[in-house]
Amino acid sequence: MSLVVVGSIAFDAVKTPFGERERMLGGSAVHFALAASFFSEVRVVGPVGADFGDPEYAVLHERGINTDDIEQVPGGKTFFWRGHYDYDLNTAHTDETQLNVFGEFQPKLSAESRAADTLFLANIQPDLQREVRELCDEAGLVALDSMNLWIETARDSLLRTIAAVDIVFMNDAEVRMLTGEGNLVRAARAIMATGPRAVVAKQGEYGAALFTEDSFFALPAYPLEAVNDPTGAGDSFAGGFLGYLHSQGDSGDADEGVLRRAMTYGSVLASFNVEEFGTERVRRLGRGEIDGRFAELKDMTSLEAVPAR
Amino acid sequence: MSLVVVGSIAFDAVKTPFGERERMLGGSAVHFALAASFFSEVRVVGPVGADFGDPEYAVLHERGINTDDIEQVPGGKTFFWRGHYDYDLNTAHTDETQLNVFGEFQPKLSAESRAADTLFLANIQPDLQREVRELCDEAGLVALDSMNLWIETARDSLLRTIAAVDIVFMNDAEVRMLTGEGNLVRAARAIMATGPRAVVAKQGEYGAALFTEDSFFALPAYPLEAVNDPTGAGDSFAGGFLGYLHSQGDSGDADEGVLRRAMTYGSVLASFNVEEFGTERVRRLGRGEIDGRFAELKDMTSLEAVPAR
Repeated sequence: MSLVVVGSIAFDAVKTPFGERERMLGGSAVHFALAASFFSEVRVVGPVGADFGDPEYAVLHERGINTDDIEQVPGGKTFFWRGHYDYDLNTAHTDETQLNVFGEFQPKLSAESRAADTLFLANIQPDLQREVRELCDEAGLVALDSMNLWIETARDSLLRTIAAVDIVFMNDAEVRMLTGEGNLVRAARAIMATGPRAVVAKQGEYGAALFTEDSFFALPAYPLEAVNDPTGAGDSFAGGFLGYLHSQGDSGDADEGVLRRAMTYGSVLASFNVEEFGTERVRRLGRGEIDGRFAELKDMTSLEAVPAR
Repeated sequence: MSLVVVGSIAFDAVKTPFGERERMLGGSAVHFALAASFFSEVRVVGPVGADFGDPEYAVLHERGINTDDIEQVPGGKTFFWRGHYDYDLNTAHTDETQLNVFGEFQPKLSAESRAADTLFLANIQPDLQREVRELCDEAGLVALDSMNLWIETARDSLLRTIAAVDIVFMNDAEVRMLTGEGNLVRAARAIMATGPRAVVAKQGEYGAALFTEDSFFALPAYPLEAVNDPTGAGDSFAGGFLGYLHSQGDSGDADEGVLRRAMTYGSVLASFNVEEFGTERVRRLGRGEIDGRFAELKDMTSLEAVPAR
C-alpha cells in the first residue's frame, strides 16, 4: 500500500519581491512528497547528483518519506532551476535551467515502487511518464501533472499519456491550450473523453476546480496576507490531494465527498507551501495546523453555517 | 422602501467570438436594475436621448422597474458604447465611446429617489457618485462600483466617495491598483480601513470574493459551457447582490449568512447575463431558474452534502 511519485528533485534559486534564496531543496517530487507525507507513506523516484547530501535526505526522512528509489548519480550534479517572480506571483520567470543528471534520467523502479497502488507522475517528459505508468501496472489510481512546454513540444505523447491516467492536474490555461477549447468546462470534458475520470484545473491565487463526468466543484485559495514564494504550490496541492485520497483507500472509486475533501487538503497544503520559501514552511508543519486550516476553508466557503469567528 | 440605482443607460454594439449585435439596450444601470428586479422594487436614475423609445422602456417596465427618474434629454442622443472581446472573455476592448447626453449628466433625483433606503452608485465619475450619495442621506445601505479610468484620473475623489459608502464592488485588479497593495487581502483591508464595511472583489470567470472586517467568503463563477457576451456581468452581479440584500431589509446590519446568499444570487444573475447578448437572457428569466441555479451553486461549493445529480 504505497503512494509513489516520480519527478524532479532539485536545487532552486528563487527571487521574489519578498526575498531570495540562492540554493534550496526543491523539485516537483520533493514538494509533492512533503505534502502527501501528512496523509500517506510516500516513496520518491528521481535522480540526484553527488551534491545531494545528508541535509537534503534528512528533510525527506524527517517526514518519513522513503528515498530508496532516489538514484544518486556518481559525479553528477543535481537538477538546478533559477527563477524569479514579479508582483504577479502567478507567473514564474525562468532565468536558468541546468538539467544535469535529470537530462539522462531513465526511471528505475524497485519492485516496491512498481507495486504502487497510487502513482503521481509529476511534470516530466510525457514519454517517461508513460513508461513509468506502464511499469506500475497494478496502480489503481494514477495522476499526472504537465506544462505548456510538453504541450508545445510533445503534444501527441502527452495525449497518449493522459489517456492512460485517472486524474489530470494542470493549470487552467494549459487545459485550454492542450484542447484548443477556450471554454474551461468544455476543455475539461474533452480531456475526460480521452480516458481520465477527473480533471483538476489549478487557478493560482483563485484556487482550483474539479471536473468529473457528472459534477463540478471549485474552491478558492486560502486567503493569505503574505505569499513569499509560490514555487511548488501546484505540486503541494497534488500532494495534499493524492496523499489524502490514498489514505482513504481510493482505487479509482472515491465518492464525491472524498474528492472534495481531497481538493481542500490540496488547497491547504499549497497555502502553507507558499507562505515561505521552498520547503521552509511545510518542513515544520503539523497535522493540527492542517486540520485547522481545513476547517477554516470549510467555513469560508459554506453557505450553510456562519463561521463563529 | 426602494432600491435606487444611478448609472449609465446605453446602446451597446458588441462583438465576441460567438456573435455580434449592432445596437442593443445596455448600460450599468440597466443591467443592475434588471438583475435586482427579481428581488426588490427598483428605481433607475440616468439620462437618455430622444432615440430612447418605447421598446427600451418596455424592457424595464416588463420587470416592474420604475423609470420616473430617467431623464429624457430633448434632441439628445443616448450614451453609446462599441466594444469587442477576444477569446479571453475577461477583457473588454473599447472601440468607440459616444458620451452624448451622459457627458452633461447632472443627477436630478425626485423626492422618491432621494428617499432610497438602498442606493447603488454604478460606475460613473466619482464626484457625481458622491453628489448623489449626499442627496440620499437617508439610505442605510450604499454601494458603489468603479473602474481603472477613475483610479487613474480622479483617484482622490474616488477615495472620498469610497469613504462614504458601505460596500465597494470592484475587479480584483482594480482593488490592488487603487490601494497600491499587491496582496488582495491587505488591499481589501486597506479599503475597509477608510470606511466601507465590505469589499466585493469581482474575479471574472473565477467568481468573486467578499471581505468584511472579520470574515472572508469566496464563490466560483457558475460553470457555463457557453459564454456569449460578458458585458454587464459585474452590474448584474451587483444587482443580484443588492436586490437580495434590500429584500432582506438590510440597513447596514446584514449578518454573514445574508451576505453570503447575496454573493450567490449575484453570481447566479451574472451567469445568466453572460449566456446571451446584452439583456436577452435576463429579460426572459424566471425566479424558478434563479433558485434552481442558486441550489446548484450551493451544491457545487459544498463540503458537506454531495450533490445527487
